[in-house]
Amino acid sequence: MYTLWIANKNYSSWSLRPWVLLKTLGIPFSEQLSSFEDGKSSYEKFRAFSPTGMLPCLIDGNKDIKIWDTLAIAEYIAEDYAQVWPSDKTARAWARSAAAEMHSGFTVLREVCPLNCILSTQLNEITPELQSNIDRIDELWSEGLTKFGGEWLAGDQFTAVDAFYAPVALRAQIYGLKFSAISQKWIDRILQLPAIIEWVESAKKEPEIEH
Amino acid sequence: MYTLWIANKNYSSWSLRPWVLLKTLGIPFSEQLSSFEDGKSSYEKFRAFSPTGMLPCLIDGNKDIKIWDTLAIAEYIAEDYAQVWPSDKTARAWARSAAAEMHSGFTVLREVCPLNCILSTQLNEITPELQSNIDRIDELWSEGLTKFGGEWLAGDQFTAVDAFYAPVALRAQIYGLKFSAISQKWIDRILQLPAIIEWVESAKKEPEIEH
Repeated sequence: MYTLWIANKNYSSWSLRPWVLLKTLGIPFSEQLSSFEDGKSSYEKFRAFSPTGMLPCLIDGNKDIKIWDTLAIAEYIAEDYAQVWPSDKTARAWARSAAAEMHSGFTVLREVCPLNCILSTQLNEITPELQSNIDRIDELWSEGLTKFGGEWLAGDQFTAVDAFYAPVALRAQIYGLKFSAISQKWIDRILQLPAIIEWVESAKKEPEIEH
Repeated sequence: MYTLWIANKNYSSWSLRPWVLLKTLGIPFSEQLSSFEDGKSSYEKFRAFSPTGMLPCLIDGNKDIKIWDTLAIAEYIAEDYAQVWPSDKTARAWARSAAAEMHSGFTVLREVCPLNCILSTQLNEITPELQSNIDRIDELWSEGLTKFGGEWLAGDQFTAVDAFYAPVALRAQIYGLKFSAISQKWIDRILQLPAIIEWVESAKKEPEIEH
């Protein structure tokens, strides 16, 4: 049995990714939530179960294996559940490239528009750097939705690449970010996903306030 | 046949990773080098074959598939060549977590100590942030070398996790960074690797000068 350690649902977009993947694919797991604290204390707190002091972190209880990164978690689960990535080789290569691009990139978007599920606002300004992030994501989504011709980014099935960009769909809603029509349809599909609705409802009930 | 597009060997630590992996595992590929130019022109230049405007980028000519991220490249190759990751499940999960941690992290080290193969210098100051990056890498390497008991980070064989940290071994040499004895042994092993020696020799002959 997998145990997924996550941080606050309201703030932790990285926790959301493997959580929504496991939920949407119907893969059983046990959820453990450890909330953020001020500054260094979160690091020390999370270090107790995650070597980077960051969450999420997956533990495979059957094998006593710990995986402390979201992409590594996706690959670990994919060894047991083939539906994590598209079955088509071309779509799979695309999906992995796109998910990895999210994993190391889009830092401006992530800094300027942090996940905060209780918020609904408008940015005072879209800087060229932020617009450049949005444009590249829009290009990527449009490419996947067109090239593979499905409802999801890399085909007919929800896969890890959809999970990796799911927080951006929430950010688009929270901060009123504008995307092309084809991308907006995918955003709406993500926002209607039962796992996302469940995540956001739980997030809104969390007692912690951002420091 | 794979074609690997890379940038200048003297500066592109991300290009080094899949290159040294393919070379060391003896996987045939064709190398294409496109050198950096000033500011935006490199982006536009690289956009011609890489959707992010960044290198490396792998093209599988047999299947007309393009993979534009280093971790995705490793996973793509791993589908054809099992030796990319450790054969042991625990070591493989560890290796993937560690490689992914490099992929999204250690930004201070990467900014303060950029790859520059022709350089040999000492930093004026090791800031706490830089030391924290070094300490975590040292902890990680020591863990892998101890836990899996091999000469390489995740066991007896050179795998993708060694390739992902290989540029740090070069940085340690270039900037005189201090690591524990067990980590230093791995650094020395990397620096003596035929693929690394070949890379550095080519880098030193490159005509371009950093802008």
